[in-house]
Formats: sequence, structure tokens, C-alpha cells
Amino acid sequence: MRRTDVDLDQTRSAIERVLLATLAETLRGAPDCISESIRYAVLAPGKRVRPLLVVAAYEASNGAAGRTEGTTRNDAIYRLACGVELVHAYSLVHDDLPCMDDDDLRRGRSTVHMEFGVRAAIFAGAALMPLAVEVVGDAATELGLTDPAAARLVRILTAASGGNGMVGGQLLDLRAEGRRVDLGELEAIHEGKTAKLIEASCMMGAAAAGGDEETISRLSRYGRALGLAFQVVDDILDVTGTPQSMGKAGGRDAELGKATHPMLVGLDRARERARVLVDRALAEIEPLPADGLEQLAHIVRDRQR
Amino acid sequence: MRRTDVDLDQTRSAIERVLLATLAETLRGAPDCISESIRYAVLAPGKRVRPLLVVAAYEASNGAAGRTEGTTRNDAIYRLACGVELVHAYSLVHDDLPCMDDDDLRRGRSTVHMEFGVRAAIFAGAALMPLAVEVVGDAATELGLTDPAAARLVRILTAASGGNGMVGGQLLDLRAEGRRVDLGELEAIHEGKTAKLIEASCMMGAAAAGGDEETISRLSRYGRALGLAFQVVDDILDVTGTPQSMGKAGGRDAELGKATHPMLVGLDRARERARVLVDRALAEIEPLPADGLEQLAHIVRDRQR
Repeated sequence: MRRTDVDLDQTRSAIERVLLATLAETLRGAPDCISESIRYAVLAPGKRVRPLLVVAAYEASNGAAGRTEGTTRNDAIYRLACGVELVHAYSLVHDDLPCMDDDDLRRGRSTVHMEFGVRAAIFAGAALMPLAVEVVGDAATELGLTDPAAARLVRILTAASGGNGMVGGQLLDLRAEGRRVDLGELEAIHEGKTAKLIEASCMMGAAAAGGDEETISRLSRYGRALGLAFQVVDDILDVTGTPQSMGKAGGRDAELGKATHPMLVGLDRARERARVLVDRALAEIEPLPADGLEQLAHIVRDRQR
Repeated sequence: MRRTDVDLDQTRSAIERVLLATLAETLRGAPDCISESIRYAVLAPGKRVRPLLVVAAYEASNGAAGRTEGTTRNDAIYRLACGVELVHAYSLVHDDLPCMDDDDLRRGRSTVHMEFGVRAAIFAGAALMPLAVEVVGDAATELGLTDPAAARLVRILTAASGGNGMVGGQLLDLRAEGRRVDLGELEAIHEGKTAKLIEASCMMGAAAAGGDEETISRLSRYGRALGLAFQVVDDILDVTGTPQSMGKAGGRDAELGKATHPMLVGLDRARERARVLVDRALAEIEPLPADGLEQLAHIVRDRQR
């Protein structure tokens, strides 16, 4: 049975609902100035690719273990998914800062620093990381996971988020601006800044379902390839997209002197590279009952914004 | 038996040693640009008050439970202590940024953004939070704690670090610059930006020792009062200290229009407030075999830098 786009929209709605509720609960007691900027950052309309991957990986792993799909959906898995989205939201806030990519527009709205100022943006970003760890811990409890499994979820998230992962990749990315970078270095940067958190999303979904090590490794490789593809497509859209379709200014990469696949090898070969990476991701999940992951791979490949 | 200053110096040396080793292990594989700035931020000469509190709270709680002091020291407790120091180091990096307090000098050296640039400083700060969570998790494992106890340590740290704690307090602090603030609001700001992490240090030490709830609460109140005192003394030293003694420029609070106890009530009453808070902290630990905590309270009260 192939999950339809309706299913995907329903999952996305559920994620939005739990995201809203999670922020309401966890920010109770925080100063208004910080909770407003965090809400603004997180609740901006987004594609929610990472939380959708958490849910799809969870279902694929449950399916692989012979558990039926219908029984496994509840708010706990959406909450886990939200934990990853908080980290992603934080990376966007810092990425957009004047001293970083200096973007005024994100997801069709003013960026956080344009709306609340640079200081609030830096602190909103900084507050999202400990919040994400708390939310993942809460989700693990709600999922009824054993404590070692809960600790593993936190570990996957923090390893993907820090200096060895996303943050390290973001800094490498900025450091590479305006200088020659070859394809190998470019993909190493993309692996850090984009692929590791997408990979972590898939691994967390699988680990939360109690997937065996083979399934977790498989979904790790799926996520790594899909994450690299995601960044290639992003860079293609920065060249070909319109501000209307993208919700942000296009052509920023060229302005910033940022190395990308389109710049290094041209649009056609960049598109080919994205296809190859998505095919590699799809090959990994071939043996699994992973309709949701398959659909998301197509979405990453075909997205127009 | 009263622990001597020699003991304190030895503990500080052990913390420095484990801090160095922990960074070497955890940053293996991170890009040089991020690991260099993180090392620089963390290994700057510091008083290490928070990690010293973790160790002292751990020993006091072990003592309260009738376990002898000599058997309980090992690198695992120093590693736990390092986890808290990483969060503190990150807060300093962000505090010093040009868009925040805009300080060029910290602990007698150039601040991180002066040495590595603003981008690297923001990312170094951002990478320290997930790193701290990992280090606390590792320490819990080494301490042989049960997983719920390990999860509790992480939870205490993240709750103290985020929007409801340190980061929220830092933002409130900046938001209050240049406007009238009364004593109540001032101490609410200090509670967030300074006292919560110091309180968390004490609670983590107690929880790591398997302290009972009464001991943990007691050390929580001790830490809260001592943390408030720490900030009052800091603000006094900003007025009375020299750049040589402080390792940073003095008089910054007045320049920034920051409300402080010396500004609101004058130096004498500020000193009195610090004494009252330290006495309150000392009263909390009265029933415990807590020589280390007592000594640290005196150090906070009497420090000249």
C-alpha cells in the first residue's frame, strides 16, 4: 500500500499540532522575549522534511519488525520528530544572521533577527538546543522506551548537531566562501551542515521503534544519501527558483561566492548527482516496507521550493 | 576536617586535566576551525567555580550518605564537572560578542570573536551545548549511574541552560540595559543568567552521588543563593576592580547602562546583600559534612577577580 499525499499532509498537520503544544508546554515560564522569538522561528511555515523522516523511519522499522502500521501512531512519535525540527529551526536562525549568510527573508517571512534583533536571534537559537534535548527525552518517556534507548536517541541528536556535525559543517561552509573548493570538499561540507541531521532523523525514528542494528544502519545510509541530495537540490533551486516559489531571495550562493554543485559542475550534472544520490537512498530501503520513506525521497528529488 | 586550599588547587588541576582530555576525545574528527575556537574558549584560565561546586556537592552528598570521602574521587566526577564548565564557557563566548556586551578581553586574553571572528565564535558557542550534553552522558556512564539518574543529570543541565534558565536570563539582561529596573527584576535576571547554572552544578553533584531528595533540595537552595551572591560580587568587582586584577575591562556595566546592585543601592549595601546571600547559602549546608562547599562559599564572597 502506497501512502498517499493525503497521509503526508495529515502527518504534517499532526507534527504542526504537536510542535505548537510542545512549545506551549516547554516555554511556560520563559521570558516573553525569548519565547516569542523561539515560537516565531519554529512555527514559520516549513516543509518539515526532518520530522516527516522521523515518523516514516519509525513506521518502516515497525513494519520491518512485523508490527502493523496502524497501531503505532501516537503523539509521542510526533514529539520525537519535533525535537529534530527544533535543532533544524535553530540552524536556520543562525544561518540567516547578518554575520553569516545575511538573509532578510526565510520561509516567506522576515528572518528572526529582522523581526526581533540580532541578540534575540542568537539567544533564540541557543535556547533551542537544550530545548530539543528535553523534548527528545520527554518523547522517549512517552514512547515507553527503556532508558538506554532514550539515552541513545539523545546521543544521536547531539552528535549530529555539534562540532562534528551540523554546526561544524555550517562553519566549514562559511569558511569556504570565496575560495576554490573541489567536489570532495564540497560534499564533506554538505555532509556536516545538512546530511548529518537528516541522517539522525532517520536513525532516531528507527531506534525509537526498537529497530535492529541492521535496520538502523540501513536507514542511516538512506538518510546520509538523501541529506546530500537535499543540499544539491537546494543549491539548484537557489539558481533556478524565484523568490515567490522559494520564500527567500534566490541567487544568494553566487553573491556569497559559495561553492555549490551547480557552480562546480553545472546545472545538468548537479541534477544528475541529485538523482544518483536519491537512487542510492531508495536502494537502501528496498528490502523494507518503507512507503513513507520512498515518498519522501521523491519529494526531496522533485521539490520546487 | 577542613579541606585546605591545597585540596582546592588539586581539584582544580584535576578538572583542567580532564577538561583537556575530554576536549581531545570529543573533538576528534571535528573540523580544525571549530575545535580550535572551542579549545580556546574552554581552556582559557578560569576560576572553575561551577565544576568545583559539582565536585564539592558530590562529596558532601556522599558524606551525608555515610560514604567516606577518599573512595569517591575519580575522573568520572571531574568529567561531569567539565560538562557544566562547557555550558558556562559557551555563555561567556556569546556574552562577549559585539552585538552583546562587546568585550575584547576575557580572562586576560582576547575574546573568542577577537581571535577567531564573530562567525566562529557563534558556532563555537553553539557547538558547546550538544557537547556538554554528551559529556554529561559519558560521565554518568563512567559513574555507573542507573539510566534514570543519568537522564536526570542531563535534564537538570538543559533546564538550567535554556530559555527558562541561563539563555533566557542573558536576553533579559540585555533587554534591561538603559532602562530603570528595580531590585526584584534585577534579581530575577541574575537568577536566570547566573544562579540557575550554579544551582544546577550543585544539584548535579548531589544527584550523581545518589543523594536523597532532601539533600538535593538543600544543595539546590545553597546553589541558588550562592549564584545570586556570585553575580552581586561580580558587579561590585566591575566597579572596584582593575583591568589587571580582573583580566577584562572594568566599568563595562556603567558604560552599557546595565542595572546592578552597586548602581541601584550603592557599593556598601551591595556588599551587605552579597554577605546575606552567602550566609543563606551556608545555612543550607549547615547539617551536611560540606567543607568543600563551605570553602567555595567563602571564595565567592571574598574573591577579588
